[in-house]
Amino acid sequence: MHFADELIKKIKTTSPICVGLDPRYEQIPMHIQQDAPTPGAAFFEFNKGIIDAVHDIVPIVKPQVAFYEMLGLDGLAALSRTIQYAQDKGLMVLLDAKRNDIGSTAEAYANAYLDTEGDFVSDALTVTPYLGLDGIKPFVDKCDKNGKGLFILCKTSNPSSGDIQDQKVIEKDLNLYELMGQLIDTWGADLIGKEGYTSIGAVVGATYPDQAKQLRKLMPNSIFLVPGYGAQGGGAADVKPCFNKDGFGAIVNSSRGIIFAYEKSSAHTSEQYGDAAREAVVKMKEDLESVL
Amino acid sequence: MHFADELIKKIKTTSPICVGLDPRYEQIPMHIQQDAPTPGAAFFEFNKGIIDAVHDIVPIVKPQVAFYEMLGLDGLAALSRTIQYAQDKGLMVLLDAKRNDIGSTAEAYANAYLDTEGDFVSDALTVTPYLGLDGIKPFVDKCDKNGKGLFILCKTSNPSSGDIQDQKVIEKDLNLYELMGQLIDTWGADLIGKEGYTSIGAVVGATYPDQAKQLRKLMPNSIFLVPGYGAQGGGAADVKPCFNKDGFGAIVNSSRGIIFAYEKSSAHTSEQYGDAAREAVVKMKEDLESVL
Repeated sequence: MHFADELIKKIKTTSPICVGLDPRYEQIPMHIQQDAPTPGAAFFEFNKGIIDAVHDIVPIVKPQVAFYEMLGLDGLAALSRTIQYAQDKGLMVLLDAKRNDIGSTAEAYANAYLDTEGDFVSDALTVTPYLGLDGIKPFVDKCDKNGKGLFILCKTSNPSSGDIQDQKVIEKDLNLYELMGQLIDTWGADLIGKEGYTSIGAVVGATYPDQAKQLRKLMPNSIFLVPGYGAQGGGAADVKPCFNKDGFGAIVNSSRGIIFAYEKSSAHTSEQYGDAAREAVVKMKEDLESVL
Repeated sequence: MHFADELIKKIKTTSPICVGLDPRYEQIPMHIQQDAPTPGAAFFEFNKGIIDAVHDIVPIVKPQVAFYEMLGLDGLAALSRTIQYAQDKGLMVLLDAKRNDIGSTAEAYANAYLDTEGDFVSDALTVTPYLGLDGIKPFVDKCDKNGKGLFILCKTSNPSSGDIQDQKVIEKDLNLYELMGQLIDTWGADLIGKEGYTSIGAVVGATYPDQAKQLRKLMPNSIFLVPGYGAQGGGAADVKPCFNKDGFGAIVNSSRGIIFAYEKSSAHTSEQYGDAAREAVVKMKEDLESVL
């Protein structure tokens, strides 16, 4: 398998949407809370309902591991079951763990998440580049070997992302996020597949469309993972610069806006949270298609 | 409790040494491998032997979570038991997880690791600052509330740490790691304890003594976590600039050099790996004292 080829193939028959599986116990419908023996069991049951509802209209889901780690071992068991269930349903799984370390420690992380078997093995992983090439290469090597994917933080969606990422570096008169873009482009150059995209992608927030435009030019072959749509204020027009002219090159993530759509829907009860999620994906797809 | 006060107090009666608990299955003595029902159980038994051997001569241990995550749920159960066992033995626990995210996700990580109860709650956590203040504040707030500690990556010990961290930023004519130093100093200003140190520390590698010297001036109240001693090539003289003139302000980490000391010792069998580890700590303490 080649991660980027597989993802593009799936996008063509579904949508460029990534569903963030970020469960929060207090927002899980009461009927699930009541039947589940533990909070982790509730997480899994909730995720199962979301996956069942959207598995044929999105290519990929993204569990945010922080919410599972917060529940300790119970939560991590739920994460493991969620990964397995999503993959059994034909979905790709991108684990949002923002891991980072060097040398043999980075290799250990790569083994945990990008190997061929294990409790948390996924199709792709998010990583943070503060440590430089030593902190990225072990992950890239593992992607190359096992056909997995990587999304490296580049320009993130949060208000203070500029504290570090917007610093103007003297070398080549670039902002740090632009330098990161150049580095990511280089790091991914050997992993370009038949569809023209490399398995080494970048995280580029929907909240900074001008920066996304520059970054699209610097990383023509990378797939962008785009957070910040919906809840964080990014709209379809803001997301547009993350895509290439071929209409590909980005997956737009939405978490709360999809999985907890039932809370804002007058047409759905909490038992129908899956239907509400599906409707939210369909609407989001229409919204994205209106600008692409 | 106030993390920095407690740590300094313990250093005064032991040493400024942090023992890295980074087990690797193939390096665990055969008698433990043979008796343990799972690799995770072997990790815990091995750690127990190290903790028993060094708990009265070091203030703190640092499990590197990557090695536990690599074993999946079995490894994470071992991590949880290790944290509990070390704390029961009177050691502080610094979890080396290099977590990073924003807003409510960062809060979820802070709940997982810096709360008052849970499977993985520790005394302190390492975090990565690429996301800016939004990615740090939820952790700092949790430290403030619960008396916990944070070590923020600043100038790391690896060869390519300069890819990002040494970039000269135009603002104030500083390298990025110096800008980070200034930010960490600001972020930690409200958490200074009676001993004069803040609970918001910095990771500063032993392999870059000149940079450490500059950083010591920029963050006079922060405790430095210093990796890179021993296996990565840093010696006592390289570590010296990480300390303040009062002889405090840094904890020097050693992992492989201590926990697998038995492999290089002709005086110890593999059954005596604990004794070998203790001897390695004593030697390291003498080495550090020779320059402090």
